[in-house]
Amino acid sequence: MLRTHTCGQLRKTDAGSQATLCGWVDSYRDHGGGLFVDLRDRYGITQVVFNPPDSSAELIERSKLLRSEYVIQVTGNVAPRPAGQENPRHASGGIELRATELVLLNKSKSPPVSPSDSVTELAGEELRLKHRYLDLRRSKMQRTMMLRDKVVKGMRDYFADRGFLDIETPILGRSTPEGARDYLVPSRVHHGAFYALPQSPQLYKQILMIAGYDRYVQVARCFRDEDLRADRQPEFTQLDLEMAFVDADDVIAEIDGLVAKLAKEVLGADVPTPLPRMTYDEAMERFGHDAPDLRFGMEIVDLTDLAPQSDFGVFKSVVEAGGRVRAINAKKGTETYSRRGIDALTEFVKGFGAKGLAWFRCEEDGTLGSNIAKFFSPELLKQFGERLDAEPGDLILFSADQFAGTCKVLHALRTKIAAEQKLYAPDQMSYSWIVEFPMFDYDEEAKRWVAMHHPFTAPLDDHVELLKTDPGKCRAKAYDLVINGSEAGGGTIRIHDSTVQSQVFSLLGIDTETATERFGFLLEALQYGAPPHGGIALGIDRWVMLLAHLDNIRDVIAFPKTQKAADLMTEAPGAVEGKQLKELGVKLDG
Amino acid sequence: MLRTHTCGQLRKTDAGSQATLCGWVDSYRDHGGGLFVDLRDRYGITQVVFNPPDSSAELIERSKLLRSEYVIQVTGNVAPRPAGQENPRHASGGIELRATELVLLNKSKSPPVSPSDSVTELAGEELRLKHRYLDLRRSKMQRTMMLRDKVVKGMRDYFADRGFLDIETPILGRSTPEGARDYLVPSRVHHGAFYALPQSPQLYKQILMIAGYDRYVQVARCFRDEDLRADRQPEFTQLDLEMAFVDADDVIAEIDGLVAKLAKEVLGADVPTPLPRMTYDEAMERFGHDAPDLRFGMEIVDLTDLAPQSDFGVFKSVVEAGGRVRAINAKKGTETYSRRGIDALTEFVKGFGAKGLAWFRCEEDGTLGSNIAKFFSPELLKQFGERLDAEPGDLILFSADQFAGTCKVLHALRTKIAAEQKLYAPDQMSYSWIVEFPMFDYDEEAKRWVAMHHPFTAPLDDHVELLKTDPGKCRAKAYDLVINGSEAGGGTIRIHDSTVQSQVFSLLGIDTETATERFGFLLEALQYGAPPHGGIALGIDRWVMLLAHLDNIRDVIAFPKTQKAADLMTEAPGAVEGKQLKELGVKLDG
Repeated sequence: MLRTHTCGQLRKTDAGSQATLCGWVDSYRDHGGGLFVDLRDRYGITQVVFNPPDSSAELIERSKLLRSEYVIQVTGNVAPRPAGQENPRHASGGIELRATELVLLNKSKSPPVSPSDSVTELAGEELRLKHRYLDLRRSKMQRTMMLRDKVVKGMRDYFADRGFLDIETPILGRSTPEGARDYLVPSRVHHGAFYALPQSPQLYKQILMIAGYDRYVQVARCFRDEDLRADRQPEFTQLDLEMAFVDADDVIAEIDGLVAKLAKEVLGADVPTPLPRMTYDEAMERFGHDAPDLRFGMEIVDLTDLAPQSDFGVFKSVVEAGGRVRAINAKKGTETYSRRGIDALTEFVKGFGAKGLAWFRCEEDGTLGSNIAKFFSPELLKQFGERLDAEPGDLILFSADQFAGTCKVLHALRTKIAAEQKLYAPDQMSYSWIVEFPMFDYDEEAKRWVAMHHPFTAPLDDHVELLKTDPGKCRAKAYDLVINGSEAGGGTIRIHDSTVQSQVFSLLGIDTETATERFGFLLEALQYGAPPHGGIALGIDRWVMLLAHLDNIRDVIAFPKTQKAADLMTEAPGAVEGKQLKELGVKLDG
Repeated sequence: MLRTHTCGQLRKTDAGSQATLCGWVDSYRDHGGGLFVDLRDRYGITQVVFNPPDSSAELIERSKLLRSEYVIQVTGNVAPRPAGQENPRHASGGIELRATELVLLNKSKSPPVSPSDSVTELAGEELRLKHRYLDLRRSKMQRTMMLRDKVVKGMRDYFADRGFLDIETPILGRSTPEGARDYLVPSRVHHGAFYALPQSPQLYKQILMIAGYDRYVQVARCFRDEDLRADRQPEFTQLDLEMAFVDADDVIAEIDGLVAKLAKEVLGADVPTPLPRMTYDEAMERFGHDAPDLRFGMEIVDLTDLAPQSDFGVFKSVVEAGGRVRAINAKKGTETYSRRGIDALTEFVKGFGAKGLAWFRCEEDGTLGSNIAKFFSPELLKQFGERLDAEPGDLILFSADQFAGTCKVLHALRTKIAAEQKLYAPDQMSYSWIVEFPMFDYDEEAKRWVAMHHPFTAPLDDHVELLKTDPGKCRAKAYDLVINGSEAGGGTIRIHDSTVQSQVFSLLGIDTETATERFGFLLEALQYGAPPHGGIALGIDRWVMLLAHLDNIRDVIAFPKTQKAADLMTEAPGAVEGKQLKELGVKLDG
């Protein structure tokens, strides 16, 4: 090794010894007689001093040629810093290295993106991506990468300790026509045929269960050719697992333990398990969303039974049409939202399909007031107030629409207001399970049922009959882990009974031929002794972001804002030679 | 969980307790009054007995419907097996489960590929691949997958303990026109442009060093669109690592420790470190190959100085033409190889470019005899015998040719004879390093130098001058790990000095424009403070095979023999819809 220590290793107890460090010049200050250099590596920063008597005149001369990001090897004497010059921000801030030798390992051009924490202004996203190696040299990026390493190792160790096998599944597979677009890879050997990059190892892990591997885990790369979206990347990594001879509770219990372990190891937090669980139906009723943010309350209150007693036409007609009238109470909301603020909220909800925003404020005397108060009797408003637990200063916001519409609007309002009212601490964490999702969504346009998860999801044991009688009511053995209002992952118990599988296919309008074409390999495997099985997939990068309390965009550019930035991030695709295309049997179009 | 124990868990100490097991019916025997079932999961086999009094008549009746590979859940009483019926081959062979309850979890059609060890005849390769889930249910396959999990975990733990960061590098990248063919992925957003799947994370890991990550490791998926070859797969996995501020010795020392750890953990073997090292030049002299099998001796002996003293025209003319006369001594070779056997060896070496095979046998009296002995004086033969340490019964085999030709022939002979003479035990292991490879090969056809590793490989410090004066003599900071005569991996120290890099490019005939086009991102990064760095990549699957002492082809089909088998293995690519191709801006050719 070219060094004896890292730049984060030396302590006062090392004073009096010799050391050799390697690293980058983070910053330097010329004192006339000598030079101070902050030397940086991923372990920390150590102050190097080029001064007599330790440094020779020739050495000091050479040191003055050092510039930002030069790579050097320095040998010197470890000494405690003079009193008052200690730097408590660095672990090695109590000492300095008084240089006796200097080797210039490499120069650097002046960096267009500064890796130094001493430069607080961040360069633009595209410039940072163009010089990714410089942006990745910043301590915040390095800490995040180290955190990710720790999280992934924590996950792997947890599952290894619990008897899971880490098995790699193929990247080159067959295209499945579900969900997002596959990335395609033309085959050279079979002209006109394509491999597909996997959107998840779903099929493979089910095959592994059928093959008897019993407990499988993988940190798996997945690919989706989606258009640029804020929270999607072309390739991403998920913690993927599958277990045989289990039901939903068993999978959930494994992940509960993982959540508690990571919270403890990364955040030092005690997370009690089992984590709270809520059915999908309850989540939609109380929070209007299947990934509710439980860091704060502001639950949705239903007023559908009371609303028609008013003279307010909108409420009456919505209820008559089978809709719902629901509301949230933004505590002390009148302090945050003036009339102009409420106008802004009204504009905001229009973006979520609302025609307007009915509201009441709770006055000093506890009564509810509003520009629509005249349509409501004082008695009715009193009942509203009681049900909403209204206190002076509160702001009540309504949504009157079909159920789904009210969910959309009130979830959006609730999330926006909580952020604006700062209802949770930046480092607060909330973990919960949403369970028993619907098996099917009804596609109004196509006039048919579609699978909410995927067509291999098992219904609840006592809902199998509903497949025949009332598919819309049929609930699945499906479970999502929700962290801070984000879906961190989800899974299901799979169908292992071919009769139930046929019923589900027929409900989804997938005939035998189509099913065989799409899923033939799995369907055949199900005939040869498939055990009951299920699993889950968790998004690792999102979880790391949440654990790191990072501002994704600003800090690490996990999700680039522009197509150009996205291209810089993945390395833009390039041209290939015509010869190569010919070998692949492929022509460019036009 | 649907079970209380696995099928490999119950012991005599559990006798008297109740247990519930889940698994597959490995085999069953009807005794008239009842049924014995060997129940299997990946943990082992437990005998389940359906017999009165534990089993009811109804239960016994139902049990008789069980068939091979049915999946069942059985509850029963754990009891020691009757004396004399214990099965020492199974960890749970001392007990049996006397069934009180049976749940049929799933049926199985009659399996075309039997997962049971009781069936010793293996099905054909293509049938096994078609029903991969059944082949993967065999205990040998499961043990191999578990071993692989253990090896990979052992690797990850080792490097984590040593401060390496596990960092994922992208799969969608830019095509680099070196080496094997890239798999290409057409971009939907940029018509006519393609991503490439990485042949290795080489570029990325160098960027990570430049970005200051210092010690990087990854179990990395790599892709090469090569034609079917016995030891190549379209996608494979390598242990990939890179370190900053190191020289070759530092990288080698890290891997030495890993080899010793895995040998201990997997084989229980003590492997002394540092592992033996040999230069490339020495390996070619002594063994004729850069991945010599050191499980046995049979070293190559040079006779070029003595050969021209004979009247044997072939030897004389070869030496005159600057060639070499070299030989190996197959100890007791005359016992293995009759005259007909030697004829077979002669045919064999013709496949490696030899025109014939000169040989001598060592007679009872210690003299050398042969059909060509008349061309050699007794004194000369005595010198041959002494140099080759010939003893009665030994067989001396020659190659006379240019150096490279003799290497090829004698390496092939040495390897073949060692296998045929069983010169090593099946579980014998040998690990060594070959170091200081040539920087360049001379491509006679193209009349130019080509990089032996890749154009970023650094020359030995005291060989930099040779870049100008004698590139063929220039040796690199390159090192290969060799296990049992197979290259298990290789690495180099990289050039971090842009002057040296330019020299190498110009030697390779790569002009600045081409270099920029191909490697621009890296070349630019080298300008911004690149530290000295180097690394290595090791083939994980080959290593697992070696550690498992597996017969690859027969046991696990790592390398399929036919294109059809290869397609079954990777899942054959499939057709995609015209709409998808249109979105990609791609047409099929013809």
